[in-house]
Parts: sequence; structure tokens; C-alpha cells
Amino acid sequence: MHNTIGVIGLGVMGSNIALNMASKGEQVAVYNYTRDLTDKLVEKIEGQSLHPYYEIQEFVQSLEVPRKIFLMVTAGKPIDSVISALVPHLEARDIIMDGGNSHYEDTERRYEELKSQGIGYLGIGISGGEVGALNGPSIMPGGDQDVYNKVAPILTKIAAQVDNDPCCAYMGPKGSGHFVKMVHNGIEYADMQLIAEAYTFLRKRLDLSVDEIADIFETWNQGELKSYLIEITAEILRKKDEITGLPLIDVILDKTGQKGTGKWTSMQAIDNGIPSSIITESLFARYISSLKEERVHAESILTGPEMDQPTLDKDLWMEYIRQALYMGKICAYAQGFTQYKMTSELYGWDLPLKDIALIFRGGCIIRAEFLNVISETYQSQPNLANLLVAPYFAEKIKAYQIGLRKVLCEGINSGISSPCLSSSLTYYDNYRTGMSNANLLQAQRDYFGAHTYERSDLAGIFHTNWQ
Amino acid sequence: MHNTIGVIGLGVMGSNIALNMASKGEQVAVYNYTRDLTDKLVEKIEGQSLHPYYEIQEFVQSLEVPRKIFLMVTAGKPIDSVISALVPHLEARDIIMDGGNSHYEDTERRYEELKSQGIGYLGIGISGGEVGALNGPSIMPGGDQDVYNKVAPILTKIAAQVDNDPCCAYMGPKGSGHFVKMVHNGIEYADMQLIAEAYTFLRKRLDLSVDEIADIFETWNQGELKSYLIEITAEILRKKDEITGLPLIDVILDKTGQKGTGKWTSMQAIDNGIPSSIITESLFARYISSLKEERVHAESILTGPEMDQPTLDKDLWMEYIRQALYMGKICAYAQGFTQYKMTSELYGWDLPLKDIALIFRGGCIIRAEFLNVISETYQSQPNLANLLVAPYFAEKIKAYQIGLRKVLCEGINSGISSPCLSSSLTYYDNYRTGMSNANLLQAQRDYFGAHTYERSDLAGIFHTNWQ
Repeated sequence: MHNTIGVIGLGVMGSNIALNMASKGEQVAVYNYTRDLTDKLVEKIEGQSLHPYYEIQEFVQSLEVPRKIFLMVTAGKPIDSVISALVPHLEARDIIMDGGNSHYEDTERRYEELKSQGIGYLGIGISGGEVGALNGPSIMPGGDQDVYNKVAPILTKIAAQVDNDPCCAYMGPKGSGHFVKMVHNGIEYADMQLIAEAYTFLRKRLDLSVDEIADIFETWNQGELKSYLIEITAEILRKKDEITGLPLIDVILDKTGQKGTGKWTSMQAIDNGIPSSIITESLFARYISSLKEERVHAESILTGPEMDQPTLDKDLWMEYIRQALYMGKICAYAQGFTQYKMTSELYGWDLPLKDIALIFRGGCIIRAEFLNVISETYQSQPNLANLLVAPYFAEKIKAYQIGLRKVLCEGINSGISSPCLSSSLTYYDNYRTGMSNANLLQAQRDYFGAHTYERSDLAGIFHTNWQ
Repeated sequence: MHNTIGVIGLGVMGSNIALNMASKGEQVAVYNYTRDLTDKLVEKIEGQSLHPYYEIQEFVQSLEVPRKIFLMVTAGKPIDSVISALVPHLEARDIIMDGGNSHYEDTERRYEELKSQGIGYLGIGISGGEVGALNGPSIMPGGDQDVYNKVAPILTKIAAQVDNDPCCAYMGPKGSGHFVKMVHNGIEYADMQLIAEAYTFLRKRLDLSVDEIADIFETWNQGELKSYLIEITAEILRKKDEITGLPLIDVILDKTGQKGTGKWTSMQAIDNGIPSSIITESLFARYISSLKEERVHAESILTGPEMDQPTLDKDLWMEYIRQALYMGKICAYAQGFTQYKMTSELYGWDLPLKDIALIFRGGCIIRAEFLNVISETYQSQPNLANLLVAPYFAEKIKAYQIGLRKVLCEGINSGISSPCLSSSLTYYDNYRTGMSNANLLQAQRDYFGAHTYERSDLAGIFHTNWQ
């Protein structure tokens, strides 16, 4: 009864979370299903407050009550197995936290089951990769507020700190913490794809070298695009392959995987009527990337545009691309935060949008300078319909849309595919269209399926005999 | 024991299917959960072979064995309720057919349950709306082949006929019939949205009147774009509002609904790694349309491009738009048929792609001239990776891409949103890119998450210590 918290699951992420906790003064009990990982972790540390256990009962008994147990276990069935093994040893008011990438609906199911047994359950989104887990990740806890309050001192301590604020805040009830993390990952996919599209334009259309492009990303990282993903992109482009001496980027196979959270984000949006085209296009770009053999074959058959490609002024177009990337980023985050807002209303969660932006500023993969502005925006306008119409972003877009429009047209005429930049602009131009062409869709639906329609000038439901 | 088939569920679709069967010489038993619809149907016909029943037991007993029962009931729980009510009265080898828009996974569950009781179950996709149901729809049956063979004579008889071929063919096992119908509807969404985008360009950028645009659609319907949706769009644009005298299209509210199958198509694609960006963009366009109040507000705040809009040559640009629409359509169908192909491989269904194109030629909403070419293509190349690389379509695109690229750039510079046309081109240009930018994504993922990568020049799995 001397350990203040327990960690189960000692893969890289779990080990680093445990080390992080120990370094912040906690007495951490650690346990893994197989003994080897526990030994490996304990071996490599000395003088840290980590205490290994090899029986789950002993692990549980070593914890102060109410017990606080942090799971860093693979999402899915393994989580359920660990919970089943734990529960017989727990008492009412003990707390289990799931720090993995569980689907938020699974978290809700587990929350309900454990709540009926008096055990507190928190679904905790964690972003930051290995390094974040060790030095301070972004932490998104969801569940009962009073349960969260009991672990808040530990969680806020191990989180990344920005301007003396911890990147950890209570998100809302039930599965909302894992939901926030899920959409975070969707935004991350879009952000990565937007950067890749900017890179492609610089490389293929401006014919810049990898080193020149690294310089550009470094410069961008000094300004309003400043973010972790821009920073690491510059570093990636600097890296040389030890075998060939080429830029390492040029020997990496262009097939991308994904691990679930990105696609869940799109599926949840689609299922609930939420526009999420930019995130979803980034997902489809990954899917197309995986069809490498088909792409190589198609390249030999399908032609590109037969238009003259004028030489472009490097400095002018670098700025256009920067504007395009920034505007794309605004649109992608606007969709992500719309997904938070609409889902929050749908599920009655009351998600704190300003806090979400705040805790994304440090620790996580999408940490970026401009999250400060997003947070300030929601601070002053908590019920804002969409980030696009906030004065700061509306002004930015007013100035930067020329860059996005120029880059897209040039890409179209050069045969360069920019699915996320394109989708950002079609989203923007669609969202600001008061009178759209959906009246034609309604007429078609009424014509062939008698689906009826509304009128813009009269109340009621109408049907026309079109033939 | 004198009726050859029974129909349960007598809404508009069910009534018309029953009338269709009766007109083809079947003796049709009809039953509805509430008496009124049965009475209404029987009242309005005379001398037809329709026989009403008001007790499910009598309905069942009136049928020849093996009994053939066609359900035209709302998808979801109502189907399960009807099946539960039916089963106690059935014998082994009887056959239930679900002709509604059930999710194919529900169909698979019901198929398995009934199979274990010796009862045959077919999930039958039906497209064509009210008129098609009465005069001949497109019919997509899935389930056991030997069960299908017993009802094939009736189904092929009531289906639309094109060039003396029925628009009905066996699709494959289990839920495959409903799956084919689901993706049909997804393609339909994309086709409708592409048409709406062409209409918008003609209306907003070429400043044509609604009547002039109706002329254009009529002309298009004489050529290779010939299709039901183009035809009804022309008729819709001709229609005048009886109240205001305006074109009816101009008083219809621009908010579009959707009834499930379109979103299921996108969700299934996303869940299984299948690129379906055009269908999905059409869905998001509908979602954005439903945010009417937000759009009207955004219009007053968000600015469009500040570029000069040159006057465009009408005839030249009409042809560009026609090319853009045709190429968009090729891309959308290429994605739809890719979804059939990849899903068929994933589930081991062996979907007959050439037959799918054949039965779409008549009866259904997306019936179109160019389905003949798609069918011929799969006839000669059953294992074709993608419609885009088939010689016919590759040649078309070679000639028509200039139109799509011109229209997109002009739209971008005019602030007109064309999400599906845009997505068609980004898909095309991405699919024909042998060496994509996904290497950068892989590098980023390896940098922050140690996700590893492959190399293009060496076998194996690699990880770099980037920092």
C-alpha cells in the first residue's frame, strides 16, 4: 500500500509514461503480462521510484486506495482482458485509466460496465509519441469529473507544460477524451498531407532541391506556420541516407499505412452528417499511396496535361505556397473543430473547445503556434459556428486565398495532385455560398424518388409531378 | 396453395412491385401489417391477379411450396419483425427475399439465421424508384445461387429489359446484392453532384438562363452523356413554378437530405482502405448544404477571389464543361467499380463486374449509355485494375482532361466550389503518379511514432533515429 499509481503494459509508450510519472515523484507500480518487458524496464533505470510486480494481485495490493491504475495496452480485446483480470482484485472507488487509442464507443461500454460495479473509468487520449510520453504528452481525459479530480494532480504533472499551463484538461463525460484524441489524429493526417502537397509543389513545380526545400520549411517554422510537423519536416529533408548518400526521403517507399484513428474520425463524421472532407481526402490519399504497383502501371498509360509550363518566380511562389498551406491548415482545423462542436451537441458532452486548443499547444503531434489563436477565439466566442468566420481567420483567408487559388490552378495545369489543398478550397467556397446548387439535387430526388422538398419562399413540404 | 409469390409491405414501392408481378402473369398474394394499405391497393385494380390477405398465416398458406415471399418493408427493425412473424409458418426450402435498402451486413446476419433453419434468404437490391418498381426496375439479387435459381424466372421477368436482356443478374453470396445496390446509390450521389456542379458553372460563370441550360442538357442527352439523370435534369430545368411563374428550381430550398445508403458506401470504403473520394465529397456537399443558415451568414463575412473574370466564349466553354462532366463521371464510376472489385476480393464474393454494368443499363437511376462500354471493358478484361487504364477511358480522358482542367481553374478563380469535379481530377492525377509524396508521410510517421518504413531500393523494414 505504498505505491501512488500503477501502470500496466510496458511497451515503449507505457514504459515512458511510467518513467515520466516516477520522475515527477510518484511511486509507480509496474506490471506487464509477460515478464520480459518488466525486467527490461527495471534493468535500465536506477534510483527511480519504479517497482516491478509479476503477479497482478500483488501489483494491485501494492497501491494506495483508491487505487489508480493506468493501462497502456493495445486497443481492442487486450484492454478487455486486462480489465477482466484486474476487476476481481479491485474495490469500489478504485480508478482505471485507459491511455491507449481505444475507440471512444468501446470506452463508453467499459465506462458503463465498470461504473455499475462502483469502479471509476477514464478514457484518456494521449498524444506525443514516445518522446512525449517520456517528457510530457498532451493529455485528454474523459469520464466522470469527480473521478478525474482524483487523478488530476498526477496527470497535470506528467503533461507537457506551455506558458506554465499543463497540456491536460478535463474534456467531458464517458468516451469524450478518446473522441478528442481520435479527431486530433484526423487533423494530424490532414496537416501531414497538406505539408506533403506543399513539398510536392516546391519539388516538382519549382524544381527545388531537397536542401532548398528544407531551408524553406526552416524559414516557415520561424513564422505563423511554426509547428512540430513543419519543424520535423525540415529535419527529415536534411537527413542523408547512409547507404546511398542520397537524401533519405528519396529512398523511402511511398506507401503509407494508418492505424485506425484517422479512419474512425472520417467514419464518425460521415455517420453523423459532419463535413470532414479535408481529413477524409488525406485518408484517401494514403489509400491511393498503398496501390503503388497500380500507380506505377497507370503512369505508363495515363497522360497528363499538354500545356506549357511557364517558369515561376521562386520567391513569389514560395510565398503563394506558404499562404496556400496556411489557408489549408485553417480549413482543416475548422473542420476538425466543427466535428468537436457538432458531436458535442449531438451527444450532450459540452466539450470545452478553448481547452482542446490549449492542450494541443504542447506535447502532441499537431502542436502549433496558431492553436493559441484558436483557443483565444473560442475563449471570446464559445458558440462560434465555424472557425472560418472568426475575424482573425476571415482576415487571414481574405489575404491568403490568392496563394491557394494560384497554387491549385498551377498544380492542375501541371498535373500535380493536391487533394487536401483542393478540398480546403472547395470547402471554403462551398461554406460561403448562401445559395447553393442543392436545389437541383432536391429536384432530382423529388423527380425520381418522390422525396419531396422545401421552398425558399413558403413554409411546408412540397412534391411536384415532374413528368 | 394457388399463389405463385407473396409480397409483404404495400407502400408505394411494394404495391408497384406486386402490380408488376401480377402484370407478368404471376398470382400474387399481398399482405400489409395494417389493413388500409392492402385495401387501397386492391381497390384500385381490377381483373389483376392480386389476392389480399389480412392474416399472415392465411397469406403463407395461400402460397405454392416452396413459398416465395418478397419483403418490401422499411429497412432495419421492421424487417426483423416481419421475419419473426413469418418464420413459424414456413417450412424448409421456403424463400424470403428482402427487396428494401437493407444494410448488407444486416442481410448477412439474417441470411445466416434463416439458413440454419433451412429457409432460403436473398438480399435483393432494387433501383428505379416508383416508376421502375412498376414498369421494370434494375434488380441485384444476392444469396445462395440455387435459391436464386428458383426465383430467377420471376425476377428476370419483372426487371427492366435492355436489348432483350433483363436488368437482373445473380450478384453473389450473402449480402452481396444489397452491397451492389448500396454502392449504386453512392455512385448516384456522385453523378448527381457532378451534374449540379456543371449546372452551377453554366449558370454562375457563363451567365446562362435556366432555359438555355435546359437546352444544353437536352443536347448532351443526345450524345455520350445520354443518361436518365441528364434527361430528368433537362426536364426539371424546364418546369415552371405555378405560384411565382419562376423556374421551379429557383424556389426550391437548397438543403439536401440523404437516406443512408450513400453514407454507408463511404463508410464501407473508408473502413476497408478503398479510395472513394468522389462519392464521399458528394456526401459532404450534401452535409454542407444542410447548414443553410451558417452558409448565409458566412456569405456576408467571407470574401471570394479578387481577380478579373474574363468573358468566356459560350460554345467553347460548353464543350469544356461537357468534357469535365464526362471525365468526372468516368472517375466516379472508376471509384465505384474499384469498390466492387476490392470488396469482392476482400470478402471472396467474385462479383461479376460486367453483369453489374449490364443490369445498371436499365431501370435504375444511374442508367446511362456509357455503362455499355464499362460492361464491354470488363467482358474483355475481367481482372482490370481500374477503369481509368482501360483503353477506351484512357483515350477519352486524354482528350477531355483539358476541359476538366480549364473548368476547375476557372471555377477556382471565380470562387465557384466544385468538390466532385475537383476530387475527380486529384484522384486521376494521384492515381497516375508512380512516385508520390507518401514517402514524406512515412518519414514523418517514423520520426514521431517509430512506425518504420520500407525502402524503394532494398527489401526489409527500416527505422531511422531522426534526431
